Amino acid sequence: MLARAQIDRVVAAALEEDAPWGDVTSAYLIPEDAVATAELVAREAGVFSGADVFTAAFTLTDPSTHVELAVRDGDAFGAGDRLASVRGPARAVLTAERVALNFVQRMSGIATLTTRYVAEVAHTGARIADTRKTTPGLRAFERHAVRCGGGHNHRYSLSDAVMAKDNHLAVLTARGASVTQALQAAIARLPHTTHVEVEVDRLDQIDAVLAAGVGTIMLDNFPLADLRTGVEKIAGRVTVEASGGVSLATVRAIAETGVDVISVGALTHSAPALDLGLDMRIEA
Amino acid sequence: MLARAQIDRVVAAALEEDAPWGDVTSAYLIPEDAVATAELVAREAGVFSGADVFTAAFTLTDPSTHVELAVRDGDAFGAGDRLASVRGPARAVLTAERVALNFVQRMSGIATLTTRYVAEVAHTGARIADTRKTTPGLRAFERHAVRCGGGHNHRYSLSDAVMAKDNHLAVLTARGASVTQALQAAIARLPHTTHVEVEVDRLDQIDAVLAAGVGTIMLDNFPLADLRTGVEKIAGRVTVEASGGVSLATVRAIAETGVDVISVGALTHSAPALDLGLDMRIEA
Amino acid sequence: MLARAQIDRVVAAALEEDAPWGDVTSAYLIPEDAVATAELVAREAGVFSGADVFTAAFTLTDPSTHVELAVRDGDAFGAGDRLASVRGPARAVLTAERVALNFVQRMSGIATLTTRYVAEVAHTGARIADTRKTTPGLRAFERHAVRCGGGHNHRYSLSDAVMAKDNHLAVLTARGASVTQALQAAIARLPHTTHVEVEVDRLDQIDAVLAAGVGTIMLDNFPLADLRTGVEKIAGRVTVEASGGVSLATVRAIAETGVDVISVGALTHSAPALDLGLDMRIEA
Amino acid sequence: MLARAQIDRVVAAALEEDAPWGDVTSAYLIPEDAVATAELVAREAGVFSGADVFTAAFTLTDPSTHVELAVRDGDAFGAGDRLASVRGPARAVLTAERVALNFVQRMSGIATLTTRYVAEVAHTGARIADTRKTTPGLRAFERHAVRCGGGHNHRYSLSDAVMAKDNHLAVLTARGASVTQALQAAIARLPHTTHVEVEVDRLDQIDAVLAAGVGTIMLDNFPLADLRTGVEKIAGRVTVEASGGVSLATVRAIAETGVDVISVGALTHSAPALDLGLDMRIEA
Amino acid sequence: MLARAQIDRVVAAALEEDAPWGDVTSAYLIPEDAVATAELVAREAGVFSGADVFTAAFTLTDPSTHVELAVRDGDAFGAGDRLASVRGPARAVLTAERVALNFVQRMSGIATLTTRYVAEVAHTGARIADTRKTTPGLRAFERHAVRCGGGHNHRYSLSDAVMAKDNHLAVLTARGASVTQALQAAIARLPHTTHVEVEVDRLDQIDAVLAAGVGTIMLDNFPLADLRTGVEKIAGRVTVEASGGVSLATVRAIAETGVDVISVGALTHSAPALDLGLDMRIEA
Amino acid sequence: MLARAQIDRVVAAALEEDAPWGDVTSAYLIPEDAVATAELVAREAGVFSGADVFTAAFTLTDPSTHVELAVRDGDAFGAGDRLASVRGPARAVLTAERVALNFVQRMSGIATLTTRYVAEVAHTGARIADTRKTTPGLRAFERHAVRCGGGHNHRYSLSDAVMAKDNHLAVLTARGASVTQALQAAIARLPHTTHVEVEVDRLDQIDAVLAAGVGTIMLDNFPLADLRTGVEKIAGRVTVEASGGVSLATVRAIAETGVDVISVGALTHSAPALDLGLDMRIEA
Repeated sequence: MLARAQIDRVVAAALEEDAPWGDVTSAYLIPEDAVATAELVAREAGVFSGADVFTAAFTLTDPSTHVELAVRDGDAFGAGDRLASVRGPARAVLTAERVALNFVQRMSGIATLTTRYVAEVAHTGARIADTRKTTPGLRAFERHAVRCGGGHNHRYSLSDAVMAKDNHLAVLTARGASVTQALQAAIARLPHTTHVEVEVDRLDQIDAVLAAGVGTIMLDNFPLADLRTGVEKIAGRVTVEASGGVSLATVRAIAETGVDVISVGALTHSAPALDLGLDMRIEA
Repeated sequence: MLARAQIDRVVAAALEEDAPWGDVTSAYLIPEDAVATAELVAREAGVFSGADVFTAAFTLTDPSTHVELAVRDGDAFGAGDRLASVRGPARAVLTAERVALNFVQRMSGIATLTTRYVAEVAHTGARIADTRKTTPGLRAFERHAVRCGGGHNHRYSLSDAVMAKDNHLAVLTARGASVTQALQAAIARLPHTTHVEVEVDRLDQIDAVLAAGVGTIMLDNFPLADLRTGVEKIAGRVTVEASGGVSLATVRAIAETGVDVISVGALTHSAPALDLGLDMRIEA
Repeated sequence: MLARAQIDRVVAAALEEDAPWGDVTSAYLIPEDAVATAELVAREAGVFSGADVFTAAFTLTDPSTHVELAVRDGDAFGAGDRLASVRGPARAVLTAERVALNFVQRMSGIATLTTRYVAEVAHTGARIADTRKTTPGLRAFERHAVRCGGGHNHRYSLSDAVMAKDNHLAVLTARGASVTQALQAAIARLPHTTHVEVEVDRLDQIDAVLAAGVGTIMLDNFPLADLRTGVEKIAGRVTVEASGGVSLATVRAIAETGVDVISVGALTHSAPALDLGLDMRIEA
Repeated sequence: MLARAQIDRVVAAALEEDAPWGDVTSAYLIPEDAVATAELVAREAGVFSGADVFTAAFTLTDPSTHVELAVRDGDAFGAGDRLASVRGPARAVLTAERVALNFVQRMSGIATLTTRYVAEVAHTGARIADTRKTTPGLRAFERHAVRCGGGHNHRYSLSDAVMAKDNHLAVLTARGASVTQALQAAIARLPHTTHVEVEVDRLDQIDAVLAAGVGTIMLDNFPLADLRTGVEKIAGRVTVEASGGVSLATVRAIAETGVDVISVGALTHSAPALDLGLDMRIEA
Repeated sequence: MLARAQIDRVVAAALEEDAPWGDVTSAYLIPEDAVATAELVAREAGVFSGADVFTAAFTLTDPSTHVELAVRDGDAFGAGDRLASVRGPARAVLTAERVALNFVQRMSGIATLTTRYVAEVAHTGARIADTRKTTPGLRAFERHAVRCGGGHNHRYSLSDAVMAKDNHLAVLTARGASVTQALQAAIARLPHTTHVEVEVDRLDQIDAVLAAGVGTIMLDNFPLADLRTGVEKIAGRVTVEASGGVSLATVRAIAETGVDVISVGALTHSAPALDLGLDMRIEA
Repeated sequence: MLARAQIDRVVAAALEEDAPWGDVTSAYLIPEDAVATAELVAREAGVFSGADVFTAAFTLTDPSTHVELAVRDGDAFGAGDRLASVRGPARAVLTAERVALNFVQRMSGIATLTTRYVAEVAHTGARIADTRKTTPGLRAFERHAVRCGGGHNHRYSLSDAVMAKDNHLAVLTARGASVTQALQAAIARLPHTTHVEVEVDRLDQIDAVLAAGVGTIMLDNFPLADLRTGVEKIAGRVTVEASGGVSLATVRAIAETGVDVISVGALTHSAPALDLGLDMRIEA
């Protein structure tokens, strides 16, 4: 779902960043006619993400490079598995190698971590969702990786959904409006396609928010017992999201409270890169 | 050392990415004349990085916003410390909040992880260096963060230093050149300011590389004993770098072998974001 | 709600487009020290949109130019009204004039046309919404103008809401899925914040779509009688949008069928520019 | 005459604007292997413009898409005519559809409106010309459309021709220069390829301008009788342009006064989009 | 006449090119609080060009830097003259120094060379004009420099004037059109503001071109005698341009043939940089 | 070694600069189906540089254009030699011609001038190096041209090597540090791959710099006798660079003092364009 124009723009910029005036090592040590064959190999097990980006790094460096993927985005693999092969001018393959790996290691790292969260909540009915805590400039890539790992995307940006938090509600009520009325007034002016989600900190805030006709209520940093009470109180009328304090250790219990969505910032802001490497052979 | 023009370009792009058609929540829920006061607070201890970037996120959104830093890049802080204060139009402060945090959490996460590696090798004489395993588009920012954490930068890109690896040497020798001669030929043509580093996989490769007059020899994935032997063999004639299999658990032992530089990809590719938050109060 | 960074980027590009190597008339005919005072005057009545963009055209040309608006975005004005005043170096004011007008005439044209549609449907409960039929590169500006005219925005892009049309449904059913099941499967994987709207061409398609739990049903090119039947059938369970064949002549009748949303491509693709002019006086 | 590099740059930006993080509808509802065949069909008669831009929208989304035009830029067509066919991956065709249409509907709308003005002045010897009242960012595209409709382009920008208006002349004379001398001084310094056009408001201004050796005199907002007098007075020595108050109702009479050029801002600032649609069939 | 937006865009890119990850010398050797005072001094006599660009290099690096020009664009100066002073943070002044000089040395070099050509043709009535042989990306800057040197600009680009050369005429006649008719047909379709210049290689081509009503005839690589004959033949009916084989040694004789314009590619493609330097003092 | 992405980006921008709204001459005078064959011919002897850039100018204008080089970058040629042939749509070949030539004439001019300097110092052991005195935006291209001429590159930017000059040393010592200590402190913090070069103005400064362990000492504007003394004093312990007052007349004597590197700003800031032309034939 990543747009080709965006892939090309971002990968070309990354290639210039990594070689603003060329790859001096290749240029001075590798004969111009040398040909390289390389294999992308998994040094650890994981879930793949970034096939198109990996390919673009090589073909934007030299269109005569040929890349063949052995896996598709979202496929799981084991340590030692061969994921892709690359063949082309040795200088180009060496020049593009690190940029290609930087993208695919990060994206596969996110996909793989997401898979672990998703596995934890299996059969609970809860979905694992990402957040806006992404790398500046790479949000579309990282959200794609979350989907590859079986996770769900949350709103993409400040523009495509409302997320009203404590600060928003506080200022509204300080000006004399009731939360319910203020939210209703906003909903009346918002695009009918814009989902409205409201974050609450306490159980007693739920009724006013529910009354406004919002789409999702986020229970922020609720203890498990309160989460359960909140889910019961809301009783399926709107989507319920849990947020805050989510880790691989806690996510199962949170899911078992019956919430619909659990958002996890760590999927994108703290996923370690997956260990993938390029085994290369240059035909001399 | 981050250039203002680059900060402005990258942060402006991040702000557009996060609000391609504005911040609907602020626009529909926050009065235009509301003023916000916010404090950047550390939810955990760490080392700060990103003051100029944090500031730019707010001032590029609204130049009337005022940001005051209580810490400087490289300062350590404890959990609960107040790191900066922001005051400005509430809509602007809310709109810029996440982008500002995304940068400073990532950069401070890198600085903080770097500090831990640096502390591990204290008094050994070894330096901790970053790698090219950085986020596409953010390399200058992440390398700055490594310096904030007391680490050293390695070469920035493929353009500014030579790093000859096994593949390079293999193709050279396959064509009948000796490694020594091939490296000398390259050095004769390279800019005199270009450092030449050569990665070796075995102790017996060191002599040929040393004879070529390179600047650094990287001992790649050497067992500790071999690292020690390598250091002795090189005997201070060139810089010695250790690479591969470096973690917080292993770095001290590696440093104690006497190597000069230990490069750690994890500093940038796997540092978790530091938990920083913005405590905001909107004057209604 | 237009982001300052986006305004600056788009207006700067427009200024370069209109003067790739400067304004030869001003440079060769106007003394460097001449000062201009200009007033933005309405040649016809309308609704204003584009204050920030108008200002940016002048200040990006010369930051010493001073712009003062007499109206705010969304204000109605009469023919002959003075909307803004500009004072600055005559060369700069002359250079920026056309770009400033091109933006504000287009945006105010859209706002004004929107107002007319909105007035037509007064007290019916129907909202007037824009579409993706906007000018490439100016969508955020044109949607802002629709809001200034009292209209509502629809989904912004292909990314932020689902709009399933006949083609989508046809391919789904051709592969043996029921429409209901296919939509439910998609909803299960989509972000929980993503609104799902489905376009139907016939009344008998409504039930299957309703059963899927979508957010909006669009009745596309329905005769008035069928619109009414559709509204009754849906009975408030989801939002109902009417689309197709909407003009100032027909919109009232459509609104009176009870639909919630009427989307009008003409708001942005065919709004004539509003006649605004700059009355200038240069102090010699 | 539109440059390929400019088409690619502008269309790629439009595609990102319309799908910043992909086309969710296609991604979630259309199988990856589905193939679409589409036909561009005219819902109303008109003149075509934008073949290369239409094609680029699809091929930049997916290079394997095949577009075949049945008309060329400038061709007239009737309602119901098939103008082009597209075949390619269904996801790509659906994703590019709206951007492709937005360009070609706007451009063909301009071409079609231009044709009507051109037809009105048939056999009078007057040409219909565009103005700088174009859409920011799309001037080259819109001027191309004017040519497709049989119109002529005016100066492209502030850089490529002089257009001295009342303000310019007023400041010159206020400083004690005669209009003739001031214009001659400018002409002596301007590129010899730069056309000088001067706008006059009154008949008595013509002599001084003629004496300066300009290329065109624009008679701005002149009554028909004065236009005729002006044409006689100028007597073919320079080009005569009429401007102001031009509409389809008035343009014939203006042309019959004998002016050479009639500039019409409405061609680009107020042409309604032409109704073109894409009839698609997806092979399931 | 250089647009501020273009200056900012081009200078910001130059600053990033020269310091993609900062100025390591300043960062590691200069205290953050050191202040520098610098003077731009002429090492040789010349004509100045580039005041705004020089200033932008410093203020874009650090807005607190203060630049004061002692000369204006187009002013002549002697060796040793002080042209400008700069005061600001020492790191910023050192970082911007080379970019500032690169622009102003090139632009002043062009202005100075232009002055020499202009002086050679004094009192002949001929003007010295530039060509499209400019540095990619810097055309507006280099043309500005030509004007600073008293030269005239020629057409800016392929878009703003016609220049028909031998190839164009050959293809026209090969298709059976007469040169006169073909040019007339083009003129009838071109913007009325577009100047048409035709290059001829032989005297006998002049009549056909004159008959077409063009604006300028370029006599390309004509011997002096033929230039004189050409000028007589044309007899002031159109502008006459001489081109080819122009140098400081030949330009006077060419001018004395009576031509109106002499175009000199060397002004921009071969002007040596002027020797300007920055004398700096850092307050420690 | 020029990266394809950078070539494409820079050449596309140059093509837009030279034809912002198309090539009016080709569009109005050349039939759409005319085919051109062109040969790049040397009007004077020289050394070639810019093959990939030359090709890109044509293929970015029209991908169906075919370019075949008869020389490779770095090849010497004589006056009259045919260097390349181009075949494609006549409009495209004419449109791209000047941009293609502007690049290749500048680059070959630099390569050719470099060759002359290199020839002057033959067998002395000194290398000729470029400087940062390059054209803004074209540094990678111009440095490539220097290499094509047999020259060596110096540091690319402020980011990839340290160059400490008198100002830097003055501020250090003014703050009470010794030059040796200050440089050692910087080296301890710099990347181990960053070369440190120090410029000295007097012989008595050499010892302190040598003691710091720098990589290169630049003897700035030294008389020949002092250069010789400096070389003897340094005695091969570090690289010695001579700078200042270098011309074709003086470079041999400088080289014979035994310095290792002679940097020549004129290679890039004052190389005249090489006279190359495109001989074209259009098949009518």
